[in-house]
Amino acid sequence: MSDDLLVLDATAERLAYTFGGVPPIAKVRPGQVLQVQTEDCFGGAVLSVDDLPSRVCRFPNLNPVTGPIHVEGAEPGDTLAVHIVSITPRRDHGFSATFPGFGALTGTPSTATLQPWLEERVWRYDIDRSTRTVRFTARRSDHVVDLPLEPMIGTIGVAPAAGEARLTIVPDRHGGNLDTPHVRAGNTLYLPVNVDGALLALGDGHARQGEGECCGVAVETAMTTVLIVDVIKAVATATPRIESDSELFSVGVARPLEDAYRSGCHDLVGWIGELTGMDALDSYQLLSQAGTAPIGNVVDANYTIAAGIAKRYVPGGTPYEGVHSRLAERGREYR
Amino acid sequence: MSDDLLVLDATAERLAYTFGGVPPIAKVRPGQVLQVQTEDCFGGAVLSVDDLPSRVCRFPNLNPVTGPIHVEGAEPGDTLAVHIVSITPRRDHGFSATFPGFGALTGTPSTATLQPWLEERVWRYDIDRSTRTVRFTARRSDHVVDLPLEPMIGTIGVAPAAGEARLTIVPDRHGGNLDTPHVRAGNTLYLPVNVDGALLALGDGHARQGEGECCGVAVETAMTTVLIVDVIKAVATATPRIESDSELFSVGVARPLEDAYRSGCHDLVGWIGELTGMDALDSYQLLSQAGTAPIGNVVDANYTIAAGIAKRYVPGGTPYEGVHSRLAERGREYR
Amino acid sequence: MSDDLLVLDATAERLAYTFGGVPPIAKVRPGQVLQVQTEDCFGGAVLSVDDLPSRVCRFPNLNPVTGPIHVEGAEPGDTLAVHIVSITPRRDHGFSATFPGFGALTGTPSTATLQPWLEERVWRYDIDRSTRTVRFTARRSDHVVDLPLEPMIGTIGVAPAAGEARLTIVPDRHGGNLDTPHVRAGNTLYLPVNVDGALLALGDGHARQGEGECCGVAVETAMTTVLIVDVIKAVATATPRIESDSELFSVGVARPLEDAYRSGCHDLVGWIGELTGMDALDSYQLLSQAGTAPIGNVVDANYTIAAGIAKRYVPGGTPYEGVHSRLAERGREYR
Amino acid sequence: MSDDLLVLDATAERLAYTFGGVPPIAKVRPGQVLQVQTEDCFGGAVLSVDDLPSRVCRFPNLNPVTGPIHVEGAEPGDTLAVHIVSITPRRDHGFSATFPGFGALTGTPSTATLQPWLEERVWRYDIDRSTRTVRFTARRSDHVVDLPLEPMIGTIGVAPAAGEARLTIVPDRHGGNLDTPHVRAGNTLYLPVNVDGALLALGDGHARQGEGECCGVAVETAMTTVLIVDVIKAVATATPRIESDSELFSVGVARPLEDAYRSGCHDLVGWIGELTGMDALDSYQLLSQAGTAPIGNVVDANYTIAAGIAKRYVPGGTPYEGVHSRLAERGREYR
Repeated sequence: MSDDLLVLDATAERLAYTFGGVPPIAKVRPGQVLQVQTEDCFGGAVLSVDDLPSRVCRFPNLNPVTGPIHVEGAEPGDTLAVHIVSITPRRDHGFSATFPGFGALTGTPSTATLQPWLEERVWRYDIDRSTRTVRFTARRSDHVVDLPLEPMIGTIGVAPAAGEARLTIVPDRHGGNLDTPHVRAGNTLYLPVNVDGALLALGDGHARQGEGECCGVAVETAMTTVLIVDVIKAVATATPRIESDSELFSVGVARPLEDAYRSGCHDLVGWIGELTGMDALDSYQLLSQAGTAPIGNVVDANYTIAAGIAKRYVPGGTPYEGVHSRLAERGREYR
Repeated sequence: MSDDLLVLDATAERLAYTFGGVPPIAKVRPGQVLQVQTEDCFGGAVLSVDDLPSRVCRFPNLNPVTGPIHVEGAEPGDTLAVHIVSITPRRDHGFSATFPGFGALTGTPSTATLQPWLEERVWRYDIDRSTRTVRFTARRSDHVVDLPLEPMIGTIGVAPAAGEARLTIVPDRHGGNLDTPHVRAGNTLYLPVNVDGALLALGDGHARQGEGECCGVAVETAMTTVLIVDVIKAVATATPRIESDSELFSVGVARPLEDAYRSGCHDLVGWIGELTGMDALDSYQLLSQAGTAPIGNVVDANYTIAAGIAKRYVPGGTPYEGVHSRLAERGREYR
Repeated sequence: MSDDLLVLDATAERLAYTFGGVPPIAKVRPGQVLQVQTEDCFGGAVLSVDDLPSRVCRFPNLNPVTGPIHVEGAEPGDTLAVHIVSITPRRDHGFSATFPGFGALTGTPSTATLQPWLEERVWRYDIDRSTRTVRFTARRSDHVVDLPLEPMIGTIGVAPAAGEARLTIVPDRHGGNLDTPHVRAGNTLYLPVNVDGALLALGDGHARQGEGECCGVAVETAMTTVLIVDVIKAVATATPRIESDSELFSVGVARPLEDAYRSGCHDLVGWIGELTGMDALDSYQLLSQAGTAPIGNVVDANYTIAAGIAKRYVPGGTPYEGVHSRLAERGREYR
Repeated sequence: MSDDLLVLDATAERLAYTFGGVPPIAKVRPGQVLQVQTEDCFGGAVLSVDDLPSRVCRFPNLNPVTGPIHVEGAEPGDTLAVHIVSITPRRDHGFSATFPGFGALTGTPSTATLQPWLEERVWRYDIDRSTRTVRFTARRSDHVVDLPLEPMIGTIGVAPAAGEARLTIVPDRHGGNLDTPHVRAGNTLYLPVNVDGALLALGDGHARQGEGECCGVAVETAMTTVLIVDVIKAVATATPRIESDSELFSVGVARPLEDAYRSGCHDLVGWIGELTGMDALDSYQLLSQAGTAPIGNVVDANYTIAAGIAKRYVPGGTPYEGVHSRLAERGREYR
């Protein structure tokens, strides 16, 4: 299998801070397996709870992604399928923090208030890969809570359309900082291809994250991610979609949060219609009773909601011609 | 047990259309068990898929609730605990519908657009209590999908504070049309007491509902609900809260949807702090990694999100002095 | 003229704290002139800059309105026209304040943040009726700024539909706490009639207010307002509208703020269409180039925007059969 | 004066479709006068009411700007002052249109609805420079309305920070598609400098526009704009600001619309504080009573509100060391 495996470490020259506007650092063929190292959202600069991000991070170089990676044959109008085989923490710990003017329960530059910022504080989490736990340790009392290790990729995307370049902290229709726990091992992410080669990049691994990521920062750590990419020719995707073995998701990315819900549901109504042949109102009705809508983030430049439905409720066709099953099958060799 | 059971049927004189402004129809003691019949949100007027709600419903008398019920000893500043023992459909079918100017994927009187309304359409669902399924039948094709029967109460609340009376279709801090699937059997709902006797009422049973209830209408049916109420003296509750055997939820009720998220999380941060003794930032941090945030509705006059956390991640105190456990214990006799 | 003048002072028995749920204190005939005294939003309890509202006000009895007043012949489905002849401060001073958890630049119970509340602070304004100025005096420095005296009514409305009762601090389609500077002398306000007699009430006079009322509190003072009411039979009004000698406004009342804009514009597009006979798209286009949209408030339970257009750009019919001109004519006698 | 005048026509090689990611086409010295031709937002492709933009425009090349222009000496952390001397239509007509999925009163890709798009329709406006009018002509009836010619620049901005490139249809803190009528002759716009040379560009002239630009498209026409630029060294500007002879504005750019209001007001509170020495609460209070908040757009990727205050209410210092007065003085020579 080795000649099929492209290994990318997270050295500085492989890190980028925008989607778009950056030349590719590597090239892969559709079907090829990638092993990608990523740095944490702090660029690795937070080493202890005394390292306040606002002091130690190298602004504006936040949230580095590894890439971009040129995918051969991907052209505008195609869909890029990114199957995630595994996500493995590269450290035995992660960090989270409150950050001035960032988070759902604080004034921000947009939701601007005259109150002083919340205190900036850092938390260190022990990551235990054997017990699959992440340990929260309170800073102002002696509480300790073990949470499940559930690794996910916070930021993954392609170059935007029409010559745009977006900071890696921004989620939008090209992907980016989606911050949804459903970008996890075993799932396939579908992204629109906007430029030749798609220019995939990823970073911002989370050892785990709550729905909405309310303080704005997850359990951030460096990761090794194994992926398989494929190209679905001449099939356009309007907004990021995710397929698991049992579910379909359309990720709505917008502000206010109801617009993230609306755009996710709207895309999913269309997807259900394509797969089943039902008309829009019947699909809308089915989704109203069977849909899930896990919130990704309520803190980033755009909010995200993954409008979802179980595949067993969507009788009929196979999404994207079965690429998820094929890649998942192939991925099992690399776990 | 019989002298302890108050039975309320859903005859017309027992239905109300506002929370507040209506005299009580019955009185219960704390700890007493109630068996309450409710009508569906259409007032029972939709009898087939040809009965368009905009024609057959008796406006403005939509969404009837059974009640209100005076709870002895409940006074402003107390908390009313409502433990739901069981919710049982009274019919072998339910209805859903698209309704003009209502729903997440349509223009509405608030999100006003110049496009014509979506088509009004009714769906009939077969409810099979033996298989615990609800059958979706498409109207414009021959698709049929069986979904789990998961009964919940859409509308439950008390009289608002300060002399207000609110339509039963409105959710707010007094409860009302919360439309969250977590108001279900086995769970305890906590509501603020704003007037003497609290004046509890409920209706709008759903055989099931998707997160967000995107078309605005769930699988609506008449229900028989068994409840036990209790009063927690001199403990105020600011926004509806829900406790299950394993989880705590603070229900945020607001527009835009991010404010429902913010207010739910804010209340839950406070609740975590009370139970654990952690400070606000430590609680906020824990919630950021461990929190869930299932969306209730994105269609009503206010949107709802149930900010939640597993109890096992909240080490320390017992919510509301253990009332949930006591009522759940007692409820087992009545299942 | 005297027998045509109904005088209502602001004694306690004439003050109400909800729209709806309160019996009328007086009756008027259409065309009758009313002279109504109102208290300020603090119920007159703030007497100096040392009187913090959170301490001196009698909760929940905030924002008293004088009324309600039964208008003879007004029935559901009619429109109530309220022409404002004059608004005159009853004191030589007013007060404003920051209030905990209230305002656009602070966390609130909905836009909930974990930061401590802003400081509560009171400002006293001297009102000089001869120079028509209102004097701002800074509290932490020696700055003094004279602003124009531009009296307006913050809160005016009728009983809501369907048995609702709403706090006087809430704006909605029945009027209420609209907080738009366009409710001022010389203008006519149109409100839906939801109950027999309409049940008009008003209060919360502002010596002046900025657009959006960002801190949440205007220059609050007791007022004497002279009004003439009329009933337009069998013409329904969906949302508050305002007519001046030169402009038409539809007041959008909603959250988020774009929905206030949308619903105001949507109603005005319809109004332009009725008056001109243009179709909806032509009216929409004209409004896009000629419309104004002064913000009322961005602080209350619902936000308000008065979508407006100059009458000279609306060729054709006469709004509400010319009632504004007739009442304005008649009002000149009472100035 | 001629050697001081840089003339840029609107030939194709001078048009750009992003802010950022484009090399400069010209260089100016601070204080130099520029005469810049711009194309309309359709790229000049709409020639009659039968030219539907969705068919004739060359996607994604919408909303061309002329530039970018390198301003000598401008460095990150400085402020670019752009004084607008004059804006003159280059044609005797302009066009507006409804565009599928764009506008305040229609479903959009974000505020996604299942209703079919509104009809796409084009309107031609006659521009009469002698009478200073713009003539609206209805398409489905024979109504004609003359509106004042009030030229403004819809899109003006600099390269964003941190390597971003944004479509010219997007407004944000770098300026861009602000769509506020206050970017007009006689006013000075202040923008943050994010890259060496600032890289100013402009386009999207409007013969006039209503507040909010509700259908999404103003009276679009090609313009000749005369500008003078200057650099204020080592003074940072966080969000676009505008100064007229009598007013100061901070332009809030965000979604939802209340966040545009909040961020504009927040910046203006700070600005008032800097100029007067008042503390934040006193400034907030003054703005609450004296502020204006004209809405720019409620249709673009971000909404805009220009939070404003009359200079006569801001006693004390001179904004940006009087650059507006100096440039306005100098601009009078070029009118």
